[in-house]
Amino acid sequence: MKYYDFGLAPNPRRVNVFINEKGLKIETAEINLRNGEQFSAEFLKVNPLATVPCLELDDGSVLSETMAICRYLEALHPTPCLFGATPLEVARVEQWSRRAEMEGFLPAADALRNGEPRFANRAVPGPRDYAQIAELAERGKARCLAFFEVLDKQLAGREFIATEAFSAADITAYITVEFAARVGVKPTATMGNLLRWYKAVGERPSVRALPAPP
Amino acid sequence: MKYYDFGLAPNPRRVNVFINEKGLKIETAEINLRNGEQFSAEFLKVNPLATVPCLELDDGSVLSETMAICRYLEALHPTPCLFGATPLEVARVEQWSRRAEMEGFLPAADALRNGEPRFANRAVPGPRDYAQIAELAERGKARCLAFFEVLDKQLAGREFIATEAFSAADITAYITVEFAARVGVKPTATMGNLLRWYKAVGERPSVRALPAPP
Repeated sequence: MKYYDFGLAPNPRRVNVFINEKGLKIETAEINLRNGEQFSAEFLKVNPLATVPCLELDDGSVLSETMAICRYLEALHPTPCLFGATPLEVARVEQWSRRAEMEGFLPAADALRNGEPRFANRAVPGPRDYAQIAELAERGKARCLAFFEVLDKQLAGREFIATEAFSAADITAYITVEFAARVGVKPTATMGNLLRWYKAVGERPSVRALPAPP
Repeated sequence: MKYYDFGLAPNPRRVNVFINEKGLKIETAEINLRNGEQFSAEFLKVNPLATVPCLELDDGSVLSETMAICRYLEALHPTPCLFGATPLEVARVEQWSRRAEMEGFLPAADALRNGEPRFANRAVPGPRDYAQIAELAERGKARCLAFFEVLDKQLAGREFIATEAFSAADITAYITVEFAARVGVKPTATMGNLLRWYKAVGERPSVRALPAPP
């Protein structure tokens, strides 16, 4: 298999932490999104959606969804388990992965892509152009901050978000906090649980191996 | 466990098809979202997010994410398998479940909640109020139609979307097509693969058991 990465972008960073936690070595190509390399004829042959991360499998098919890549790697390499082992753990990891994504990560993406001039007409990733919506950028920021309150409350007395172990939910939530900072949304000083967890996750070798976020 | 349902709303319909495919009988309470029952003191004690579907577990914890509920039921009742069995099937089901959700279901929800007068100030589900954004309703409709083109192409020569078997990806995509009709977006007559698949899925007993969509 071959992995297409861009170490500064949030979705590849989620996959990268996942790969690092598993201790996997995968052949990797960097697609520089800031130089528009995702639109090169060569890369569009691999992934016509013009997005990274993506994982090209040995049968030639391509996974272009972050969570599909992670679940594939989990199925091939179950240890350490990052999606939960028991039915209850599986459910809790999914519950909190989804909440982090729906209430935090996607709103942060809305804020960035609808707010920054360099995404003019590129408000949605993928092959089609969509105009920016300034109001959606503002809604995205408000929703991120609201999610940080949720996360702070959830982390009271807890080391990890979903279960007793580090999981995919922690990965998505951590990258969400990083990502939201790019649009100016940060945890407040009163969010002690969130700040403690964020610091601890940031010290994991899997996260320290990432390039500094933009 | 106890399941909280509203048979006319898209996310509960996804769970209901899933439950029906598994042949499960679960104690169920109907929460009428059109009468505002999700804001009753009694229901807010179960799910402070004021959303259905949700599943109250025997330990008192509550799953409020559609896919967390489905994955919990799959873990408890693995047959028939709806999230894929081999690593490649797992990956493909997730790839297409996510695409259906990100490119179809969520844009349909954007269109409905930002466009219909009855969702004024309720543009995002959950406990917080957000003003509608008319431009986002229009973007949602355009994205739904674009996704139908993707789906039609994917279904060429295929019975099901992700693998050789009916899966969670078919469920999300089917409910997306139903849902998009509520905002006036329908497959065009030229989308023969999509129309064939939609008709076939609609004839499954798990889907026929649903109330007619609004």
